[in-house]
Amino acid sequence: MKSYKGYLIDLDGTMYRGTEQIAEAAGFINDLRKRDIPYLFVTNNSSRTPAQVADKLRSIGISTEDDQVFTTSMATANYIAEQKKGASVYVVGEEGIIEALKEKGMKLVEEHPDYLVMGIDRGVNYEKLSKACLAVRNGAVFISTNGDIAIPTEQGLLPGNGSLTSVVSVSTQVQPIFIGKPESVIVEQALRVLGVPKEETIMVGDNYDTDILAGINAGIDTLLVHTGVTTKERLKQYKEQPTHVVDTLDLWRFE
Amino acid sequence: MKSYKGYLIDLDGTMYRGTEQIAEAAGFINDLRKRDIPYLFVTNNSSRTPAQVADKLRSIGISTEDDQVFTTSMATANYIAEQKKGASVYVVGEEGIIEALKEKGMKLVEEHPDYLVMGIDRGVNYEKLSKACLAVRNGAVFISTNGDIAIPTEQGLLPGNGSLTSVVSVSTQVQPIFIGKPESVIVEQALRVLGVPKEETIMVGDNYDTDILAGINAGIDTLLVHTGVTTKERLKQYKEQPTHVVDTLDLWRFE
Repeated sequence: MKSYKGYLIDLDGTMYRGTEQIAEAAGFINDLRKRDIPYLFVTNNSSRTPAQVADKLRSIGISTEDDQVFTTSMATANYIAEQKKGASVYVVGEEGIIEALKEKGMKLVEEHPDYLVMGIDRGVNYEKLSKACLAVRNGAVFISTNGDIAIPTEQGLLPGNGSLTSVVSVSTQVQPIFIGKPESVIVEQALRVLGVPKEETIMVGDNYDTDILAGINAGIDTLLVHTGVTTKERLKQYKEQPTHVVDTLDLWRFE
Repeated sequence: MKSYKGYLIDLDGTMYRGTEQIAEAAGFINDLRKRDIPYLFVTNNSSRTPAQVADKLRSIGISTEDDQVFTTSMATANYIAEQKKGASVYVVGEEGIIEALKEKGMKLVEEHPDYLVMGIDRGVNYEKLSKACLAVRNGAVFISTNGDIAIPTEQGLLPGNGSLTSVVSVSTQVQPIFIGKPESVIVEQALRVLGVPKEETIMVGDNYDTDILAGINAGIDTLLVHTGVTTKERLKQYKEQPTHVVDTLDLWRFE
């Protein structure tokens, strides 16, 4: 078996399930630390800052530094910074995406931006959606942090960023560039931060349609763990299989 | 030429253009009145009450009674009333649709409705969209007053009801029943109110993709007038042509 030099690791369904711990997750991360293998947690969550995500992980016993969290907001900011330094951006979103864009020196504006960025925004309203549509109609590059159509909450499945994004794509007939999993952009950006060649890096996650597909789309090896969304039955239906599959992360052999 | 006994007539682009009068419109309506030919104005506007729409028409010199205005909100309410008397409805929308549903004896509720109805709502927010998604996930029949993707304003093209509706359809993966033009539902409901057989009724409008297509979908004759959206050039590209075409409404021969 190949010995991977870098790990990109999903959170929900892989490290925890909602508010519930996944027993084998902490040991898996400790094994990586003992071996000095670099890893990044890669999440489609655009609303939280990396420090907030790291806090949650530590609170359930998973060892991490803040800078081992890589959010789709950071991937979005890095992606835009590569294209245009000091770009002006109109953002529909919460703290995570706003902070990530500011940190990369973007200018947040309400009108005539170079970019429109949409992330989940529980404070969304008609005025914000109108400004977003006008931005795109005036030529702003349309970027969406992720296409997740629903988010699980105690109330049930509420609208995800992919569904909010559709207001602008349906109204303007312009399709956004999606950054988060299953797109390859977030993986490519994470690889640059991790600093390990893609041939030696593996993407770990529970969800075929997001985590595994993101790895496949980016051309890196993948490990599916059956502690979350994708069951064994369901996995059989996919033509392209993950590189590796385990029931739980304690069964993974590092070399 | 066939002598039509009933007219269904579009508003924007046919009776006026935004705030601008269309010179031949008032005369056309006066000719209908002189001949005692019943007519209804049929509009995809779900936010205004028929009285408000009639006021606007009268203010630009077009003769109409309030009950000669038939909105997509009225069509929606009539459609639901036919299916279930006293249905419970969660509505995302403005005055026009709320009043129309109340008038038909619907019970407006926030949770576990029989129907979710979406019309343009400039007060839309994440909470409303969440309730709408939960309603559909809990089995509510999903109805949208119209699929218009954009509405023209002084600021530019802002999100129309079709784009707001997409939040719920993308998130729940359930497609709504659309009521407004180009769907046949609004025409069928208008015909019942007009009380003229469909074979003797004509649909008049400026927009092939909404007005004319609604007539075609409902199986009635159509008259396209070139005072609005659909130009002569554009019209050539459609396979199924309107029954009649005129440049302006003063050129129409009633018999």
